[in-house]
Amino acid sequence: MAVHLYFDFISPYAYLAWTQLRTRDDLEPIPVLFAALLDANGNIGPAEIPAKRSYIIRDIARIAHRFGVPLAAPPSHPFNPLLALRLASLNLPRAQKVGLVDALYREVWAGGRGVTDRDVVAQIAAAHGVDIALADTAKATLRANTDAAIARGIFGVPTVVVDDQMFWGCDGIPHFETYLREGNVVPDALVTAWEALPASSVRKR
Amino acid sequence: MAVHLYFDFISPYAYLAWTQLRTRDDLEPIPVLFAALLDANGNIGPAEIPAKRSYIIRDIARIAHRFGVPLAAPPSHPFNPLLALRLASLNLPRAQKVGLVDALYREVWAGGRGVTDRDVVAQIAAAHGVDIALADTAKATLRANTDAAIARGIFGVPTVVVDDQMFWGCDGIPHFETYLREGNVVPDALVTAWEALPASSVRKR
Repeated sequence: MAVHLYFDFISPYAYLAWTQLRTRDDLEPIPVLFAALLDANGNIGPAEIPAKRSYIIRDIARIAHRFGVPLAAPPSHPFNPLLALRLASLNLPRAQKVGLVDALYREVWAGGRGVTDRDVVAQIAAAHGVDIALADTAKATLRANTDAAIARGIFGVPTVVVDDQMFWGCDGIPHFETYLREGNVVPDALVTAWEALPASSVRKR
Repeated sequence: MAVHLYFDFISPYAYLAWTQLRTRDDLEPIPVLFAALLDANGNIGPAEIPAKRSYIIRDIARIAHRFGVPLAAPPSHPFNPLLALRLASLNLPRAQKVGLVDALYREVWAGGRGVTDRDVVAQIAAAHGVDIALADTAKATLRANTDAAIARGIFGVPTVVVDDQMFWGCDGIPHFETYLREGNVVPDALVTAWEALPASSVRKR
């Protein structure tokens, strides 16, 4: 049973979830472009709404406090995560990939230099035995993984998928742990009823 | 120290948070129109994005399981919550208001008849010693509370506000509890750095 973790370096929530899940030996990290998930779903990122952007720094600080992990503001945000995502999309042995993803995450969210400077990313890659020049060869893989995530109904990061179950966000982690212990706790009848619900009033937009 | 709980009956997350907070004797429930928060912030409700709407039924079922509280699909969703919100905005003694809000919530999210039928709402109101005819007198209160919430930076429900701290969502409840035990855990320097961050790449919408 593989545990798929869909993530993008741009998301502090994905970083925080990573700190909790990275040591699982059944973990398969899958980089996806969060902006493409938003586009495909007509969704808006939490940092794209001023009141929410102001809230999330407090929310992620509280989660980092609970997890006992370092958190710092990156050099810029939003930023272009493509180079780091492509690098993390390379087909590498698991331990090497986890080490690389971890180093890239820390460079963004734990007081580093960010991952928008090619020289910085090249250094990190080299320290993990990867040639930065290979990043471009993973363009199609990143795109395919992002498209597959969208097709799977994934709309945000971090998202954990195991069996037919999906868990979104840091608040999805305890639900994921419940699933591992107890199995599925979602009644089919509730889902069926919800999917069939009529709307009796709809907000005009 | 009052604990303000901003809510709308339309939100299953607000219902679930209510089940955990309703017995606090420092609780001040404040009904607001969620649709107006969304409008003011240019935000999109979780049930307004198909992939997210499909996810949230599973998410709320998992939370209800963890909390050990009943959850059922309402007769319709979205629905017009104005009558119930106005009723809950009346100036009533605390115990009476909590009982009324609780009954309205259960009618929506715990297998009841919903709160869009005026006769149903009138029955619930009467059972809690309130004349449904009074609901219209609370229009201005509901509007003023919603406007004040928007001005305070509130963008969603449930939101708990205590002192200068804001906690959004069911996942905000453990952070709220941490605040009560430990005080503020959010470093000012992190917030300052975040507010001053440049964007180095912005998604086109």
